[in-house]
Amino acid sequence: MRIALDAMGGDDAPQNIIAGAVLALREQPEITKLHLVGDTERIKAELKKHGCTDARIEIVHATQVVEMSDGAVESVRKKKDSSVSRAVDLVKKGEADAIVSAGHTGAAVAATTIKLRTLPGIDRPGIAALIPTESNVFVLIDAGANLDARPVHLLQYAIMGAVYSRHVLGYKNPAIGLMSVGDEDVKGSDFTKEVFKMLKASSLNFRGNIEGHDLFEDPVEVVLCDGFVGNVVLKTCESIAHAIFRWLKHEIYKTPIRKLGGMLAKGAFKAIHKKTNYEEYGGTPLLGVDGICIIAHGSSSPLAIKNAIRVAVESIRHQVNPHIVEEIKRYNEQNTAPAHAPAEA
Amino acid sequence: MRIALDAMGGDDAPQNIIAGAVLALREQPEITKLHLVGDTERIKAELKKHGCTDARIEIVHATQVVEMSDGAVESVRKKKDSSVSRAVDLVKKGEADAIVSAGHTGAAVAATTIKLRTLPGIDRPGIAALIPTESNVFVLIDAGANLDARPVHLLQYAIMGAVYSRHVLGYKNPAIGLMSVGDEDVKGSDFTKEVFKMLKASSLNFRGNIEGHDLFEDPVEVVLCDGFVGNVVLKTCESIAHAIFRWLKHEIYKTPIRKLGGMLAKGAFKAIHKKTNYEEYGGTPLLGVDGICIIAHGSSSPLAIKNAIRVAVESIRHQVNPHIVEEIKRYNEQNTAPAHAPAEA
Repeated sequence: MRIALDAMGGDDAPQNIIAGAVLALREQPEITKLHLVGDTERIKAELKKHGCTDARIEIVHATQVVEMSDGAVESVRKKKDSSVSRAVDLVKKGEADAIVSAGHTGAAVAATTIKLRTLPGIDRPGIAALIPTESNVFVLIDAGANLDARPVHLLQYAIMGAVYSRHVLGYKNPAIGLMSVGDEDVKGSDFTKEVFKMLKASSLNFRGNIEGHDLFEDPVEVVLCDGFVGNVVLKTCESIAHAIFRWLKHEIYKTPIRKLGGMLAKGAFKAIHKKTNYEEYGGTPLLGVDGICIIAHGSSSPLAIKNAIRVAVESIRHQVNPHIVEEIKRYNEQNTAPAHAPAEA
Repeated sequence: MRIALDAMGGDDAPQNIIAGAVLALREQPEITKLHLVGDTERIKAELKKHGCTDARIEIVHATQVVEMSDGAVESVRKKKDSSVSRAVDLVKKGEADAIVSAGHTGAAVAATTIKLRTLPGIDRPGIAALIPTESNVFVLIDAGANLDARPVHLLQYAIMGAVYSRHVLGYKNPAIGLMSVGDEDVKGSDFTKEVFKMLKASSLNFRGNIEGHDLFEDPVEVVLCDGFVGNVVLKTCESIAHAIFRWLKHEIYKTPIRKLGGMLAKGAFKAIHKKTNYEEYGGTPLLGVDGICIIAHGSSSPLAIKNAIRVAVESIRHQVNPHIVEEIKRYNEQNTAPAHAPAEA
């Protein structure tokens, strides 16, 4: 498997990216080639720090970096020699099987969409984030690829999310829930009401509107929302879990008795922390593009990057794209309202 | 202080509502009259269960109940004798100083907006939810009153949220953050980018875009978002905190050693639970209407209702509305772009 890693994307790039790459190469024998895309000198310097001379590494020079303040689509047009664009080019030319980037999410989405195009029947790609609960793992789609979505895009996300849940997570008949402000059919914004109608009329396994408490108490397998809401929900979930554990630590350190209790119960904290720590998930697949693209957190640690590369390896193994194409085709045959926007198709 | 309580609104109404009213009457000597609005016979039966004969209670009969499946605005037009509408009428007629409802949020918003009207300079009311962090309490506005907001409504929410933070929570110069998908100025949906521009050009204490991790790690005092996003964030925060504690309990019960540890550290869990338990907050004020309206959770327990009534008492004491009117006026004098929608003003 050949992976193109955007070595310059991320808050602590290239240090954390290269450190994560070194960890991944140690643990992933399936990787036959790891393209490190970016400033050759800086990448070499980082590799030297780790004493890494793995023969599977190939440095691909790129002179530019997309900054967080750059516009998404403009970055593709104006920074043709950016690390993320060059990484996507490697997939386009057939020299890599997947891209991993912890840089500007919008730029990675734009570069893959423009250069690799979307899959047949898909108008816009969506990020499928995996969120763990005590009893399952659900797919949250879209977690931030498409910030100004149209209702039909969410229908496509529903289909893609269900395919991912079935083929990658192993749920036989994943239920789809639409993130809204109440469980009742009539609740929602004008946008979600329109999506609700489309899903209700479809052949999909649609459970209806869901709200916050459903996420963790009676979870569905696919949680549907536009990219703005999804990104806010994902980051809120991550940060609140983190905040509660930090707060708990401070409270436990307040008295010696609590401290002793905390030590004895340590295993319980660790078990949950491991399951809720986003670094363990590492990266989220961008579904709907004709290629494999894994989006990692901007603030990725080396551990998170290592795991994002693992997700790329797993995605190459799973090859979910042919299933998406097939499922969209089947959907369009079975339903009177097709799952694509006429104006954009 | 005279409060009109919607006795029929809520998942477990009238039982939990009356039980909460009984608790509130015991603890709040400032209440001089508590109107219980709804089905007289059922209210009497519930009061009897508690052996409550408090002379401050006045039952106001209403024959209808707004169901969760009813449309918000239609409920006001079609169910003129609903408990929530009758409760609002009491404020309109000057017989009550505040309304408390745990029923259909949209119906309560519509009834107060239509019957009491908005404050001068306010186009749409917004729900101001209080969210606790380890170090502060922030106002999340709008938490669900206005699901299809226009950018100018968020400017009004910013002003109202800051007034609330200053006058009720005591923050001298509350910072305002706009909920978005990244900290950078360019990040966001078309909607939030428009709001960003208005806030940036204003005289308000605007910190810029914020995202999930800012909520708890470097919190602002006022978090701004449209009602759909705000409602989703609020419910996600509540449910994830709840889910983590339940999960932790299960993990702690797995071994006798952990269990012992959990017992010793109990105080730490309790301290956080008390601060994050929404029942302790009880209700959230609907800001921007010409009157006082407290919105409680549909699933409110008696404790939550008691606390929602306490929030009503505090709101009557604080009288934040004149400050909002004054602040909006001052804003419009100081800023070239006024804080209202020309088409709706």
